[in-house]
Amino acid sequence: MSPRLRVQNFSVTRDGIGAAEDQSLEQPMGSIDVGRLHAWAFATASFPGREDGGGTRGLDDRIVADFSRGIGAEIMGRNKFGPQRGPWTDHDWVGWWGEEPPFRTPVVVLTHHPRPELTLGETTFHFLDAPPAEALAVATELADGQDVRLGGGVRILLDFLAADLVDDLHLAVAPFEAGHGLRLWRSPKDLEGAFHHESVPSPSGVTHHFYWRD
Amino acid sequence: MSPRLRVQNFSVTRDGIGAAEDQSLEQPMGSIDVGRLHAWAFATASFPGREDGGGTRGLDDRIVADFSRGIGAEIMGRNKFGPQRGPWTDHDWVGWWGEEPPFRTPVVVLTHHPRPELTLGETTFHFLDAPPAEALAVATELADGQDVRLGGGVRILLDFLAADLVDDLHLAVAPFEAGHGLRLWRSPKDLEGAFHHESVPSPSGVTHHFYWRD
Repeated sequence: MSPRLRVQNFSVTRDGIGAAEDQSLEQPMGSIDVGRLHAWAFATASFPGREDGGGTRGLDDRIVADFSRGIGAEIMGRNKFGPQRGPWTDHDWVGWWGEEPPFRTPVVVLTHHPRPELTLGETTFHFLDAPPAEALAVATELADGQDVRLGGGVRILLDFLAADLVDDLHLAVAPFEAGHGLRLWRSPKDLEGAFHHESVPSPSGVTHHFYWRD
Repeated sequence: MSPRLRVQNFSVTRDGIGAAEDQSLEQPMGSIDVGRLHAWAFATASFPGREDGGGTRGLDDRIVADFSRGIGAEIMGRNKFGPQRGPWTDHDWVGWWGEEPPFRTPVVVLTHHPRPELTLGETTFHFLDAPPAEALAVATELADGQDVRLGGGVRILLDFLAADLVDDLHLAVAPFEAGHGLRLWRSPKDLEGAFHHESVPSPSGVTHHFYWRD
């Protein structure tokens, strides 16, 4: 079986917004209500870093736990890696995630401003200036036979969808609207032409949308 | 966090039947329609042994893929291991699963007729005559810090539920009735007193019931 490119657990609002435009160090996803956007995941027993033994163990928990299954590498945009824009002034910034980022695989960071690779715990970030198909080829090599996760943000998802490279796409649609921001779609049906599509309302209030192609 | 005892992906009919009474070599679950009972799982990309690259990749697939996550041992009843009853006449029977059973952990087989342990591929079967709490202690030791899966059948689930030993219980309720057989409950609500409970209809037609305690 060929490795697949999978979007796992990507949260958007009911109007298709994944982040605000005004990303900053203080607000990694801009002025969108991140707590509300990701509340469904934070509440689960399997959320990374939870050590209190609590959390829900229903549908949302199964989906959060699925994040790393069969994944050998991630591709993310530079805006997911950090709030800086333009040329790096230094290499002090090492991402939002501290000493042990939750990826634990190679990560390809797409940027027009490459910098030396960076290893933190079990994660190594490779900075690459390349179009989607080339980035996927690099990540697939790094994934060593496993699947590649497309981590986002919204612009990266749109680029890879436009290039017809995405095999599986899971969105968690939160039960509120943002009104403006970085928009993935106007309606969950916008993607149906290219994919099988299942919509599953979770008791938590989010609706999970699973898109896949054969 | 303490290891948990989890029932994963146990299928029953809408009237709570998990198997018929008349188990035999030809009919591992008796005269119940096994294909119909497990159709939701067979259809998924992650079903064990599927090698054609096909299958669905929506909700049911996430749940099938969750079967082994964090599991270090299984407990099953003798009737899941085979159709024989009473003392073993020989030890030629090695289970239904061929050279590489899908468990890939130690498995405790509860039986009043113990026999020598048996290793097939990555699975070792340990035959034990013990009440539920003692069986769980043995399996927990074998699981080496990971969770224990309670594999069934119905009688084993009822015994462990009666002993208040089950932490997580996932049932896939198939959209038909059997009328008679080995019955887990009359209604999904029968278990609600002891557990949190979520019910999630899948687009495939089964309804997933997640029960858990804190």
